[in-house]
Amino acid sequence: MIGHPDFVTEPWCLRETGLDLGLLAQTESLFALSNGNIGWRGNLDEGEPHGLPGSYLNGVFELRTLPYAEAGYGYPESGQIVLNVTNGKPIRLLVDDEPFDVRYGELRAHERCLDFRSGVLTRRVDWVSPAGRAVRVTSTRLVSFVQRSIAAICYEVQALDDPVRIVVQSEIIANEQLPTPSGDPRAGAALETALVQEKNASHGARAGLVHSTRGSALTVAAVMDHTVDGPDGTRVEAESFPDLGRTTVVATLEPGQRLRLVKTVAYGWSGSRSVPAVWDQADAALAGAMETGWEGLCAEQRAYLDDFWARADVELDGDTSIQQAVRFALFQVLQAGARAEGRAIPAKGLTGPGYGGHTFWDAETFVLPVLTYTAPDAAAQALRWRHSTLPMAIGRAGQLGLAGAAFPWRTIHGEECSSYWPAGTAAFHINADIAAAVVRHVRATGDMAFEQGIGLELLVHTARLWRSLGHHDGQGRFRIDGVTGPDEYSAVADNNVYTNLMAQQNLEAAADAAARHPGRAGELGVDAEEMAAWRDAAAGMFIPYDEALGVHPQSEGYTGHQVWDFAATTAGQYPLLLHFPYFDLYRKQVIKQADLVLAMQLRPDAFTREQKARNFDYYEALTVRDSSLSACVQAVIAVEVGQLELAEDYLAETALMDLDDLEHNTADGLHVASLAGVWTALVAGYGGMRDSGVTLCFAPRLPPGLSRLAFGLLMAGRTLRVEITHTAATYTLGDGQPLQLLHHGQPVTVTAEGPLTCPIPDPPPTGPKPTQPAGRAPTPHRRSGT
Amino acid sequence: MIGHPDFVTEPWCLRETGLDLGLLAQTESLFALSNGNIGWRGNLDEGEPHGLPGSYLNGVFELRTLPYAEAGYGYPESGQIVLNVTNGKPIRLLVDDEPFDVRYGELRAHERCLDFRSGVLTRRVDWVSPAGRAVRVTSTRLVSFVQRSIAAICYEVQALDDPVRIVVQSEIIANEQLPTPSGDPRAGAALETALVQEKNASHGARAGLVHSTRGSALTVAAVMDHTVDGPDGTRVEAESFPDLGRTTVVATLEPGQRLRLVKTVAYGWSGSRSVPAVWDQADAALAGAMETGWEGLCAEQRAYLDDFWARADVELDGDTSIQQAVRFALFQVLQAGARAEGRAIPAKGLTGPGYGGHTFWDAETFVLPVLTYTAPDAAAQALRWRHSTLPMAIGRAGQLGLAGAAFPWRTIHGEECSSYWPAGTAAFHINADIAAAVVRHVRATGDMAFEQGIGLELLVHTARLWRSLGHHDGQGRFRIDGVTGPDEYSAVADNNVYTNLMAQQNLEAAADAAARHPGRAGELGVDAEEMAAWRDAAAGMFIPYDEALGVHPQSEGYTGHQVWDFAATTAGQYPLLLHFPYFDLYRKQVIKQADLVLAMQLRPDAFTREQKARNFDYYEALTVRDSSLSACVQAVIAVEVGQLELAEDYLAETALMDLDDLEHNTADGLHVASLAGVWTALVAGYGGMRDSGVTLCFAPRLPPGLSRLAFGLLMAGRTLRVEITHTAATYTLGDGQPLQLLHHGQPVTVTAEGPLTCPIPDPPPTGPKPTQPAGRAPTPHRRSGT
Repeated sequence: MIGHPDFVTEPWCLRETGLDLGLLAQTESLFALSNGNIGWRGNLDEGEPHGLPGSYLNGVFELRTLPYAEAGYGYPESGQIVLNVTNGKPIRLLVDDEPFDVRYGELRAHERCLDFRSGVLTRRVDWVSPAGRAVRVTSTRLVSFVQRSIAAICYEVQALDDPVRIVVQSEIIANEQLPTPSGDPRAGAALETALVQEKNASHGARAGLVHSTRGSALTVAAVMDHTVDGPDGTRVEAESFPDLGRTTVVATLEPGQRLRLVKTVAYGWSGSRSVPAVWDQADAALAGAMETGWEGLCAEQRAYLDDFWARADVELDGDTSIQQAVRFALFQVLQAGARAEGRAIPAKGLTGPGYGGHTFWDAETFVLPVLTYTAPDAAAQALRWRHSTLPMAIGRAGQLGLAGAAFPWRTIHGEECSSYWPAGTAAFHINADIAAAVVRHVRATGDMAFEQGIGLELLVHTARLWRSLGHHDGQGRFRIDGVTGPDEYSAVADNNVYTNLMAQQNLEAAADAAARHPGRAGELGVDAEEMAAWRDAAAGMFIPYDEALGVHPQSEGYTGHQVWDFAATTAGQYPLLLHFPYFDLYRKQVIKQADLVLAMQLRPDAFTREQKARNFDYYEALTVRDSSLSACVQAVIAVEVGQLELAEDYLAETALMDLDDLEHNTADGLHVASLAGVWTALVAGYGGMRDSGVTLCFAPRLPPGLSRLAFGLLMAGRTLRVEITHTAATYTLGDGQPLQLLHHGQPVTVTAEGPLTCPIPDPPPTGPKPTQPAGRAPTPHRRSGT
Repeated sequence: MIGHPDFVTEPWCLRETGLDLGLLAQTESLFALSNGNIGWRGNLDEGEPHGLPGSYLNGVFELRTLPYAEAGYGYPESGQIVLNVTNGKPIRLLVDDEPFDVRYGELRAHERCLDFRSGVLTRRVDWVSPAGRAVRVTSTRLVSFVQRSIAAICYEVQALDDPVRIVVQSEIIANEQLPTPSGDPRAGAALETALVQEKNASHGARAGLVHSTRGSALTVAAVMDHTVDGPDGTRVEAESFPDLGRTTVVATLEPGQRLRLVKTVAYGWSGSRSVPAVWDQADAALAGAMETGWEGLCAEQRAYLDDFWARADVELDGDTSIQQAVRFALFQVLQAGARAEGRAIPAKGLTGPGYGGHTFWDAETFVLPVLTYTAPDAAAQALRWRHSTLPMAIGRAGQLGLAGAAFPWRTIHGEECSSYWPAGTAAFHINADIAAAVVRHVRATGDMAFEQGIGLELLVHTARLWRSLGHHDGQGRFRIDGVTGPDEYSAVADNNVYTNLMAQQNLEAAADAAARHPGRAGELGVDAEEMAAWRDAAAGMFIPYDEALGVHPQSEGYTGHQVWDFAATTAGQYPLLLHFPYFDLYRKQVIKQADLVLAMQLRPDAFTREQKARNFDYYEALTVRDSSLSACVQAVIAVEVGQLELAEDYLAETALMDLDDLEHNTADGLHVASLAGVWTALVAGYGGMRDSGVTLCFAPRLPPGLSRLAFGLLMAGRTLRVEITHTAATYTLGDGQPLQLLHHGQPVTVTAEGPLTCPIPDPPPTGPKPTQPAGRAPTPHRRSGT
């Protein structure tokens, strides 16, 4: 969409200067507001037209029976699906006799702007009704980072040329009618009227609704209150019905005169508390927010974001669209995780119903690295949520005949919701991904209490899983057979290199952490024998290598498979999964998303420089990027192997994944992991940051067109700012103890006493530019000037 | 059940001398009558009590939507499921005021007997009503092999001690209420009221019903007529209702007096003809059968079976229970296939709703070999049915991106009905199994017209499939990756040895047949280049071999997998598929059913004698026989490698699979392929018959306890009788041209001039007895005396 003429490239906001109704659903996702607890899609205030109405509360879901034409042992029986909860956004407007609707009358101006620093979505509309009455409507919407149960809208109507009688109806609506879902399996299934009315009430300018869910037995309350500032004679009245709360404001405006309405909405929900308790919980949150007031909420929001940007901002000189995109991405990643607190971070955040509202491995692998270095409390909360689901994961492992914990491939609440086991249950790497997120978080924060209280238990149970999932063969190699790696165009293979390397790290990390916390480890039943068994398995881990080709096979035997007939595949047949059977995709060399290449990013120590270059070249020719989780990883490794031009293209693809709807499903919500990948492509790509070893490493290198890249990290509470030019990198430590780093492989020490500048060495010799499958090369990026 | 005291071991019938209500469902399967077109389960005449009422017409099915929680390209959308059609069996009896019901009153005697020579099921009951009235009820039931639309019952009631007033209600019933199905995935799903009433009528002693099906749009007619022979004053009256036709006979019997009722039922069905046309079709069949009369139907039945047994009987001296079992098996295999004519042979025949009434690969691999040598017209008809489904198979291959034809893993009508692709679509070996059945049939019958008209086209389209499914790797090996072999505890593996060997044979056979019929081959688009491509692929076929272990892996890499922990698996955890996830079964060395061992039976030329012995030993230790398709194959190879004691145990397991309900699902219908396996275990086992080469081979060898085995085959219309003792085999050719054979590897020629007796050489040295997984050795067989 930002390729669309209505979109303006600005460094600190996403601004749309017109309204293309064909892009409504996509822009609703882009303009979504969330704090990780509440999510409001960027639906127009007046509710219609809409692409897809959406209001979400993290953790509020309904159950659905998973059907199987042929049953099998261990198949999950019940799925979870995110619910569209009570919609607190609608503010309808009647201008004289005409409802304000952008499809009628004359739309003289329409602008929306999502501001990354103030954290609000503003909208300004000049509209002339079919009867000729001109009004200006301005709304400012926020979902508070500080008060996590609160969203608010400041809504203003101004008469422009003539006096107008206006009626404003501010509503909360339950059980909205939703559009019929598409047949795309990646879209979430819609649920029919899902909310059961429990209570409704109104008083003064307030109204509220309480509903419950049938299968998941959750209670959800939404209450709203208003402050109204209008001309004399303005009347305010609230009423409620089973699925509707409505506050009606009636006023007559002279030309130039305004009516201003601040709508404050509070949500509360619970799986255990009573209807009155949940109602009270929402009412209490509302009371607090009303006390804060609109200006107070805005000030809090700004302060919260100022703090975030001070440590986390990424500056990029030489490419304004990527500059905008990385800030948009960071803002959205923050929105997804900031206040999730005890809940998962879904693949689409709270911006849409895609993937059923489920969280996957990409939360830990793509999103948490960003949060760990920029908002570590949010990362810790996400891992605490995983920890809270340990009993379910232990139960699932037991059901599968395994030791330790088997975390779900997809879930909202913690139970496995994947009905297709070759790409669900078999994708055990999620357990190592969680372990890696724990290890990274502990290294980055130095939070030993977290490690002892949360991390160790996660590491121990995942290590136990691996020990029971693999086995030693006759040659003493530790094999992990019949599992599925990240690439979803392969499944159920032996010794997936990514999985085995991540499992190896998991096993070693568990042994190391248990040694650091012997008391707690003992309570978990870990003894020296078990630790030795973990280390033995890690030491013997089988990493297949194809000597003839000089590359690592994605999994054992992979390189012997037939290469997909890319020449015979038309552009319209992508994504392949919608046009070819899994059986055919799985048995051939064709890659949906980085798998072996991701292993090279996350386990750089396991590959020589030459292997990295050869592997990258080999897998580039097979990778079609039908997943949003690929380009960012390819960007990172492209930089490492010296393919800077290609890296720029992959960075741009990552950066524009949602902003230009490259996967054609941004309408269902943003790809939060891919957004996180924008940061990673810059920081791990051009910055060359690697954090899987004991020492944090950087190997900065900029492509010709960029003149400067700067980014900030939190390391053990200290801010590290890295500024990169073509000739040097400057490391600045905010405060605290000196920090050991590797700069292009050389140990350096940064102290709080002053910046450390290191020269950037000449690039090593680089091979020819790798080729991609026919028609699947990334679009060459055209940099937009500074 | 024949281990049950109610069952008597007799050479030519299955006789039950009591009635155990707990075994009703199983005995309904054992006593089922069928001609391959109509199937009637052995339900009691009076309808209740029952285990599972069942009346089937081959090809009459209903559609059901196959649900997927996560959709995928190429998944079949619609399944087919066998329907319980209009039940023509019920004859209810009222004795004075009491309905005849074996659960009430006194059951003085109850005997049922299925006679393999006369082809009728007789029943004789002496019953005293709760009010003290004694009657003898005798019924004789047949489903005619000669008149394929006809079934009939001769029903007699005799008053024993006192005069009784009796009312006989002979019925045809549609939409019977069926018991709720079990959760066992192998059982078929039940359909609710599936038949839509189209017409009903009655006249004289006749009544008929026509119904249609909703989704599959079939029309089914069932009509009945009666001849009644009773004392003066016997009244007969027929009436009809939407789901019921009823003929009521009222009579008063003096002690010793009898009422005899012959019920003749005709079925007709069509997917294209009108209701009146289908009604007339059934009425016409009924008229023909009424003309033949009961004695005529019985005489035809006997003559048909006399002819069959004259060529096909297997005689076994030294084991009466196996003697009975092999005749039961041959009778049931004949029942399944005799008059299927243009329809499939389902896995359960027409004896029950198990597996949804679907046919699978075992029709061609297990059942057709028996029919080809004993009832070749039935085998030809089954292959004609496959041929009639070619357009669907070609369409399916196209949908999957493959050339040629991809026959369905499971179907009734021809469309793929498997919803679980790793054990459905991926099991491409069914195509080679069909090709092998074609090759066998042509070799055994010498029917070149069949080869040119039907066989060649099947061979060409299956060869094209293999050529497009496999590929040559860099070493020139032809690989077939990512497919599933016969063993259902493995899936989606590379270079399954069974599959590759069968595909190799398929490719060669297609090229050979095309060379024999160049004109027809040309019409099918086959040219010299394509034939060369098939031969090249066959010549380069990759057959993996584990040099270190000296065995063939079931598929590439298989022997590196972890061996299943048999020691930790309890008896109650079998069958494993009901207690462990597929993911775990697939990734470990544990075998449900013969796979590599079956390859050694069907492609004996591909293994040395030493390899066969080592492979058998290796796979014995891994095979749990959770499938009914395993023991017979293990018996065959056990004989070949000299393990005669083990072979006897496997033969007995095969022979008793249904007779003793070893798989606990005989209630859903008989395992027709396993029944065919009884013949195969004897003929290919002790007889050592192999037929995959140009010359038919025998290598007879009897275990110590048997003194004689004799069996008959049809070869190109000539009867070959083989009689085996411990010292010699005698080959007798009925008539026609001399026949070349191999006897224990030596070429011999049998002529019609007289028997040829060949000595049996001393057995080669035999290794130690192989071991099976803990608790999974076959039950040692205790021979029952001659």
